[in-house]
Amino acid sequence: MSAIIPGWFSEISPMWPGEAHSLKVEQILFQGKSDYQNVVVFQSSTYGKVLVLDGVIQLTERDECAYQEMITHLPLCSIPNPKKVLVIGGGDGGVLREVERHSSVSKQFFPNVAVGYDDPRVNLHIGDGVAFLKNAAEGSYDAIIVDSSDPIGPAQELFEKPFFESIARALRPGGVVCTQAESIWLHMHIIEDIVSNCRQIFKGSVNYAWTTVPTYPSGVIGFMVCSTEGPPVDFRHPLNPIDGDESRGPLKFYNAEIHSAAFCLPSFAKRVIAPETS
Amino acid sequence: MSAIIPGWFSEISPMWPGEAHSLKVEQILFQGKSDYQNVVVFQSSTYGKVLVLDGVIQLTERDECAYQEMITHLPLCSIPNPKKVLVIGGGDGGVLREVERHSSVSKQFFPNVAVGYDDPRVNLHIGDGVAFLKNAAEGSYDAIIVDSSDPIGPAQELFEKPFFESIARALRPGGVVCTQAESIWLHMHIIEDIVSNCRQIFKGSVNYAWTTVPTYPSGVIGFMVCSTEGPPVDFRHPLNPIDGDESRGPLKFYNAEIHSAAFCLPSFAKRVIAPETS
Repeated sequence: MSAIIPGWFSEISPMWPGEAHSLKVEQILFQGKSDYQNVVVFQSSTYGKVLVLDGVIQLTERDECAYQEMITHLPLCSIPNPKKVLVIGGGDGGVLREVERHSSVSKQFFPNVAVGYDDPRVNLHIGDGVAFLKNAAEGSYDAIIVDSSDPIGPAQELFEKPFFESIARALRPGGVVCTQAESIWLHMHIIEDIVSNCRQIFKGSVNYAWTTVPTYPSGVIGFMVCSTEGPPVDFRHPLNPIDGDESRGPLKFYNAEIHSAAFCLPSFAKRVIAPETS
Repeated sequence: MSAIIPGWFSEISPMWPGEAHSLKVEQILFQGKSDYQNVVVFQSSTYGKVLVLDGVIQLTERDECAYQEMITHLPLCSIPNPKKVLVIGGGDGGVLREVERHSSVSKQFFPNVAVGYDDPRVNLHIGDGVAFLKNAAEGSYDAIIVDSSDPIGPAQELFEKPFFESIARALRPGGVVCTQAESIWLHMHIIEDIVSNCRQIFKGSVNYAWTTVPTYPSGVIGFMVCSTEGPPVDFRHPLNPIDGDESRGPLKFYNAEIHSAAFCLPSFAKRVIAPETS
């Protein structure tokens, strides 16, 4: 019953008490403190490079495809010709990489982005995403993607009602939002609150989707995928396929089938999230 | 970067090098050695009781529903009126609990079962599942469920071609099998071999499905779900619903939607497992 693993990184947090996922460290590549968070980057022995913020794994090279592709293409493949897309968070640049697969996109804004990017269509804003959104012109975005860390520390506001209200205001009628929304295995009470807030604010459609990410706690992560009042959006049946466009390298995870399947919930989650259909 | 966690159980194995999942131990309830494996049962602080065989977590009370319900109902909900069902492995009794939800089932055999069971429909055989199957009458089962541990140690034979041939022989025409088939994130090479073997042996339909189980390595586990030549079986569209029958307590995980969704694979897995459709 030994549990002593020197030379490994263990992710321990009050957000998931009593369990920890550990990765073997080959080399620490960066350790430092930004204005907002403690930042560690290390080379792991089997998951490639790993980014850790405040002790929590944000991405590994081996499985980041699942999170980045799903949080981006679930909203963008659900509407025709997304042009103006706002990404809040997403500092690692992975969501941006995925947004770029959509050739219709003309312009994006990236508050809180830590990694710069060359695409001339990108407008980069480093600052407070909540304040940025408050000042955004009403009805200006086709889609907003909120790639945030967990709701403790700097990202807490991104899970609260005023933030969702700002999102709804900044979206065009029938615009879509996709936000990181925790794990059905660990955080049903948080999810229940988010769903309840979203039902009050997004008058088009409110949905929960999930995917597998091995290095996230419990091995899954969920998304709130909502639309504002306006042209209806049927998130379960994507109408804007990108499966075929592999000019930017093949998609590793996303396809139209896994898009639809992501909205199918285990019974224990369905009873809480979508009681009217369970 | 501390990784020293005294009082925790850490699952370390050459089957998933460079990563480990750990659970906090409240109390060790049993430690011993069977003829085949080392057995540990402990009370964890947040996942209920945990069964460990040869250092590998087999089930926790918190998430066993996902595995047990899926490995049982994926095959049994895909055929009308399953009557004769063989369970190989499944020593913890969880698969048996799920089989019992199907009122059509008349008789079952349980080689290698560690936990006895009272249902008068159960015939219990303690012994070698491989030998048992070799001696089984040809064409005698509607369904066979192979609830095995990983393909190192005593369960290795359960992943090899002769065993699959025995299964095909013991099933009736159009009979179905569901076997534990590892993780798409960790073991694509093993899965590729299993799929290739199954394509040669099962002349009805050969499919891979997966589900989320937080305490299994990488957070997912897969299943080979196949049928023999005979009446065709459309595994993706279950025709034998049990969603409504909650006389034995509600299903925690399984429902008809998650059944169909389980067959939708991420692109990286689809390219290997189902290249003709990706």
